[in-house]
Amino acid sequence: MKTDYDVIIVGAGPAGITAAIYLKRANLNIAIVEKGAPGGQLNKSSTIENYPGFDFISGPDLAYKFYDQINKMNIEIISDEVTDIIDGDIKTIKLKNKEITCKKIILALGRKPKSLETKGKENLEGRGISYCSLCDGALYKNEDVSIIGGGNSALEESLYLSNICKSVTIINRTDSLKGDKILIDKVLNKDNISIIYNAEVSKFNGEDGVLESLDIKENDKIINIKVKACFIFIGYEPDTSFLKKLDILDEKGYIITTEEKETKIKGIYAAGDVVKKDAYQIVTAASDGALAAIACTKELGK
Amino acid sequence: MKTDYDVIIVGAGPAGITAAIYLKRANLNIAIVEKGAPGGQLNKSSTIENYPGFDFISGPDLAYKFYDQINKMNIEIISDEVTDIIDGDIKTIKLKNKEITCKKIILALGRKPKSLETKGKENLEGRGISYCSLCDGALYKNEDVSIIGGGNSALEESLYLSNICKSVTIINRTDSLKGDKILIDKVLNKDNISIIYNAEVSKFNGEDGVLESLDIKENDKIINIKVKACFIFIGYEPDTSFLKKLDILDEKGYIITTEEKETKIKGIYAAGDVVKKDAYQIVTAASDGALAAIACTKELGK
Repeated sequence: MKTDYDVIIVGAGPAGITAAIYLKRANLNIAIVEKGAPGGQLNKSSTIENYPGFDFISGPDLAYKFYDQINKMNIEIISDEVTDIIDGDIKTIKLKNKEITCKKIILALGRKPKSLETKGKENLEGRGISYCSLCDGALYKNEDVSIIGGGNSALEESLYLSNICKSVTIINRTDSLKGDKILIDKVLNKDNISIIYNAEVSKFNGEDGVLESLDIKENDKIINIKVKACFIFIGYEPDTSFLKKLDILDEKGYIITTEEKETKIKGIYAAGDVVKKDAYQIVTAASDGALAAIACTKELGK
Repeated sequence: MKTDYDVIIVGAGPAGITAAIYLKRANLNIAIVEKGAPGGQLNKSSTIENYPGFDFISGPDLAYKFYDQINKMNIEIISDEVTDIIDGDIKTIKLKNKEITCKKIILALGRKPKSLETKGKENLEGRGISYCSLCDGALYKNEDVSIIGGGNSALEESLYLSNICKSVTIINRTDSLKGDKILIDKVLNKDNISIIYNAEVSKFNGEDGVLESLDIKENDKIINIKVKACFIFIGYEPDTSFLKKLDILDEKGYIITTEEKETKIKGIYAAGDVVKKDAYQIVTAASDGALAAIACTKELGK
């Protein structure tokens, strides 16, 4: 059975990179397909303090370490986007620019930040509305900014922005923050971070296509706050609509796997944040990648 | 319910340390009980090339990074050995030197290297027979040594020893090596490593309590090879006999858990190499620790 590759990994985040390390060590002929920058969501995270081995590292720095590791192992990265997967003994992956064949596939697609469908958003994304404080925070030095969300990402990024910006206003839907206690304490102790509870943005206001203020529904009243930027951290969702016809997704688009990370289609595995599970952490994603690679390697008889 | 600690973690290897990082970030009152050196089996591993984030690091160096991380977080380590665990709403952990109470326990006990019951072994352990090339390899500089085993540990350690010793003879029970292809290739390409297949040591010979040679049963004949040291890497086994009465072990002594890493006893979790599972890797152990800590934290309502 002649194929271009033994295994194709889709996605070069922590799960995909770890899978690649394990597969390459088993001497398999592999490549990673990645449409963006290696490291996935890591690239958008300002601070990582819970990945064992690094007491404090920025997301892009950890992403670079992961990338450097597969680079040194001469693992091929194909910069392209998967548009379709055709199952069979030989599996065909359709990319935007070509087609490749392989025996096994590991889907390590990760997740993307959830968007909001609030009035006024459509014209202001990239012009005040952002999903990445690390990418855009420096544009708002000494300005007033806001963050929507109350989980770990929102808290980490509010701390990051509080060191750059004049003030950070967190707009939180419920009456309490949801993240790690250590992060909540840090946020509450920061003089230039304030929190509006039980609140939602009802409208983004801008002039000449630049964000100027937010209308916020707080309990029953509407208030208006002036901010130069609004960063949205309200969670993540998988981006798997192109896989629908394979019938391996749950109702939210996450991929369902066994403990060994195989989907119900033989030879198609999934690892990391795209998998339906309880914990979405860097170290659990990496572990998924190792498990999928080990299962793949066994199946290939290596 | 007043206890000394919210959670006690038993064992400071990759699983226990990762659990501690996550629990401390949730602001829980925790400690790790460790009878040996923090890092567990890492301390005995010469080379690690498959933990994401480090392309090449020695086991003790990675152990130190893990240890440094929990140190900076002011996580308490109790240097003592657990002798018994009494279950209840409040759980009591008996140590050699005192008793402590807690609400939840995470057992991250790891494994220990398997021993051999070969004739002559009893008087020569620590005098030529070793389970740690990193600890004892340098004692045999420019000498002929041997390794028993054919898996990843045996291969990694034979490569390490081949750079120190004059020659390394691998004694392998079957007709092929079992490790990663990348390691097998490196071993086969080393001029001063040789392999005896289908062979077992039938007797360790020593004089004045120092190893001098091995009798080896190779297929049907007995051969004798002169070596100054024999390193044993024939796998690992859990060291959990003190947990027998809790009835959470399988027949080999591994702890049985749910996917969330809880045992059938409420509030007692297990993580890492002591758990019955398919893959025993550093990154999977660390992931287990995170999962157990996340489940614990939820249960404690934090």
